Amino acid sequence: MFLSELMPVKQAHRLIKNTLTQTSTEKILLEEAYKRILAQDVTSLLDSPHFDRSAMDGYALQAQDTFGFSERNPATLTIIDRIGAGTVSNATVRKGEAVKIATGAPIPIGADSVIMEEYTQEREDHLEVESSVTPGENVSFQGEDIKRGDVVLKKGKILQPQDLAIIASAGYSNVEVYRKPRVGIITTGSELVTPKSNIHGAEVINSNHYTLKALIESSLAIPELIQCKDEAELVENEFKKMLQKNDVLITTGGTAISKGDVVVDVADKLGEVMIHGVSIRPGKPFAYAKIDNKPVFMLSGYPVAAMVQFDVLVSEHLLEMQNLNWKTPTVKKTAARKIPSTLGRTDYIRAKTVGDKVKPLKIKGSGIIRSMVESDSYIVIEENLEGVMEGEMCDVLLYNSLRV
Amino acid sequence: MFLSELMPVKQAHRLIKNTLTQTSTEKILLEEAYKRILAQDVTSLLDSPHFDRSAMDGYALQAQDTFGFSERNPATLTIIDRIGAGTVSNATVRKGEAVKIATGAPIPIGADSVIMEEYTQEREDHLEVESSVTPGENVSFQGEDIKRGDVVLKKGKILQPQDLAIIASAGYSNVEVYRKPRVGIITTGSELVTPKSNIHGAEVINSNHYTLKALIESSLAIPELIQCKDEAELVENEFKKMLQKNDVLITTGGTAISKGDVVVDVADKLGEVMIHGVSIRPGKPFAYAKIDNKPVFMLSGYPVAAMVQFDVLVSEHLLEMQNLNWKTPTVKKTAARKIPSTLGRTDYIRAKTVGDKVKPLKIKGSGIIRSMVESDSYIVIEENLEGVMEGEMCDVLLYNSLRV
Repeated sequence: MFLSELMPVKQAHRLIKNTLTQTSTEKILLEEAYKRILAQDVTSLLDSPHFDRSAMDGYALQAQDTFGFSERNPATLTIIDRIGAGTVSNATVRKGEAVKIATGAPIPIGADSVIMEEYTQEREDHLEVESSVTPGENVSFQGEDIKRGDVVLKKGKILQPQDLAIIASAGYSNVEVYRKPRVGIITTGSELVTPKSNIHGAEVINSNHYTLKALIESSLAIPELIQCKDEAELVENEFKKMLQKNDVLITTGGTAISKGDVVVDVADKLGEVMIHGVSIRPGKPFAYAKIDNKPVFMLSGYPVAAMVQFDVLVSEHLLEMQNLNWKTPTVKKTAARKIPSTLGRTDYIRAKTVGDKVKPLKIKGSGIIRSMVESDSYIVIEENLEGVMEGEMCDVLLYNSLRV
Repeated sequence: MFLSELMPVKQAHRLIKNTLTQTSTEKILLEEAYKRILAQDVTSLLDSPHFDRSAMDGYALQAQDTFGFSERNPATLTIIDRIGAGTVSNATVRKGEAVKIATGAPIPIGADSVIMEEYTQEREDHLEVESSVTPGENVSFQGEDIKRGDVVLKKGKILQPQDLAIIASAGYSNVEVYRKPRVGIITTGSELVTPKSNIHGAEVINSNHYTLKALIESSLAIPELIQCKDEAELVENEFKKMLQKNDVLITTGGTAISKGDVVVDVADKLGEVMIHGVSIRPGKPFAYAKIDNKPVFMLSGYPVAAMVQFDVLVSEHLLEMQNLNWKTPTVKKTAARKIPSTLGRTDYIRAKTVGDKVKPLKIKGSGIIRSMVESDSYIVIEENLEGVMEGEMCDVLLYNSLRV
C-alpha cells in the first residue's frame, strides 16, 4: 500500500512536477499586478515616446543656426513660442527662430534639436545661444524606447515595479496573470493549542499555523487554515472540505513512517499516496498524494522539519502552478568547520553566514525552533557526499532567497 | 531661497535620516505579522518544550533496564500504557516496565529515556528491547529550546515565517509592530494620461503611477495615489490634502533645477526645502522638504530617474520610519567592460549580471523604461572614482535585494 523506500529529493521533485496542473488565468488591474506572474506576452500598442520629444529643458531650434557660435560669439534667435510638457506648439520653427521647450514636450515642426537652457541667455523675445548643437541633439525620437508591435514582456515573468511601467507604456491598464493557488492547510494534532501563557498537561502550541501561513504567502499563494484533532474521521472530513475549496492541500502532523499515521492513511483512502518518506534530513517523513487530481503535501508536525519540507519540496511547486520557473538560488560559501553527513541522504543544516563563510549551528533536535530564528540559511549536503571539510566550499541556500 | 549646490548622496541620507520621525506602534494578530517590523522585545511566557517530551516514536523506560542487552539477547519489559502526542500517561514506569509513546508526548513519571520503535519487538503486552539506551536518550527536556523569561526576539527585527513560530511558542497570539507609514503620491504633469491605445498630441502615459505604487509596497508602506496637473494652485491643494491624510508625501515631476518648478515652489511655500539637487546620475533633480514636520520626497517625472531616486534616496527611509535599520546590500562583481564616470558624482548604471560578471547596458536617455526591464542591477560608481576599468571589481546593487 505505501512505498517503503525513501525517495531521493530529485526524484520527488520530478514526480511532483509531473502531477501538477497550472492555475487558470485572470485579468486584473495593472495597479494590482506587482509580484503576480504574467500569463500573456505583452505586445506594445504604441510607440514610446509617442512623438519626438525634448530630453532637456531648453530651446528647440535648427541646429545649423548654432554652428560656429560660442559664449564669446553667441548666435541670436527669435523666441516664437513657449511650451510646457503637456503642450503642442502650433508654431513652425524656421531659420533664426526658437521655441522654449520643457523636458518631455513634443519638438515643434521645423526644429531638429534642443539646446540646453544652461547654454543660453534670454533677452525679452531674443535668445542668445552660446554653444552649438548637432541635429538630433537632446531629442528622444518617437519609438526610441518601444516600437508599436514590440513584445516588451513575455509570459511567465514575475512582475517587478519597472515591469508595470513598461506594460502601462505599451498601452494597457489591465494585465492577464495566473490565478494564485488557494492552499488549504490542516494542522493536525490533538495536543495543539493556540498560544497562551498557561499550558496544561500535554498541550503544545501550534506554531506551524503561523509559519505556514507566512510561507504560503511568500510563495504567492492564498492560505486557508484549520486545526484538527488527529482522529481519522475528523481528518477525513476536513480533507474533503478543504479539497473542495482549494487547489492544493497541505497538512502537518501524522506522517511518521509507522503504523497509525492518521493523515497518510486518510490520503491513501481518498486518493493515491505517491511519496511516503524522502531521503532528506531533517524532514524524512514527508508524504505526497493526489486526491481528486489535486496535490496534497503532508509535512511533519515538528516545526523545523515542516519548514525544511516546505522550503525544499513545496514552495517551488506552488510557483510552478503559476507557471513561474523558479530555481532556488544556491550560493557557494566556505565551511567554517567540518560538517559530517551520511551518503544517500540530502542534509539541510541550519547555518549562519558571515561574509563568505558559513557556520553550521550546534543543535540537537528537529523541534528546536530557536535554531531557525538564529540561522539565516541551510547548508545543503547532497546525497553523494559524506560531508564537508573545514575550509571547503559548500552549497548554501539563504532563507531570504527562498521567499519570493 | 533654494540650495544651488548639488548635495552628495551620503550627506543627503544623513540630512533625511535626521529629520525623520518613527511611526507609532500597533498591536496586531500574530497571523498578520509576516514582514512587519517588531516594536517590542519578545520575552517568553513559557518553557518550550513545556515538559520533558519524547523525541521519537518508541517506548519510555528506565535506561538501566536496557544496559547490556542486544538483538541476540533482548531485554523483556512489560508495556503498562500507550500514549499519543496529546495524552499524559497516569502510569508510573518502574523497573521492568515501559510505556508506548508517540513523538511529542510527555515522558511518564519514572521513565528517563525512550528507545526507538525500530529496536523493539512487541509481543502482546511484552516488549523485547534489542538495544541499549543511555539516560536522557531521545528525550527533549523542558526548556531545552526556550526558557521562560528568555528574550527570544528583539525590537526592530523584520518578522520572517520562523519568527512567528517562536513568538507563538513564547505564548503570544498578538504582537506589537510599527505602523506602516501611509505614503501619499502625487504624480504631476498636465501631459499625463492613463494607459490607452490611442494617444493624442502631447499626451504621455503615466507609468510612474504603477511603478511607485509597487515600490512603496515593496518598502512595507501603504500608498495612496493621485494625479495632478502641474499648476501651482492645484498642486498646492493636493499637497495639503495628501499631507493631512498621510505620514509621507512623494511627488513626481516639476523638480527640474530651473525656474518654474511648480512642485518645489509649492514645497518652498508650505514648508522648508532642505535638498534641491543631489550629485547622482541619473536623478540629479531630486528635492526633499519638511512640511508640517512630515517628509516630502520630490522625484523626477522621468521614469528611470524617479526609480533610481526612490531606490537610492527614499526606500531605506520608509523602512527606517518603522525602525528597521536597513543597509542596502551591495555585492562585488567584475566589470565586463570599461565604465567611464565623472569625479564628484555617484553614478547608478543600469546593468545585467551574469554569474560573477556585470555588464552595463548601452543606453542613451534617462527616459528609457526598457533599460530598467532588461537590467537586473545598478553598478554604483562612487563620487571619488573616475570610472571602472574592464576586469576591475565594482559595487553592484541587485534590484531584488532592494525589495524587502
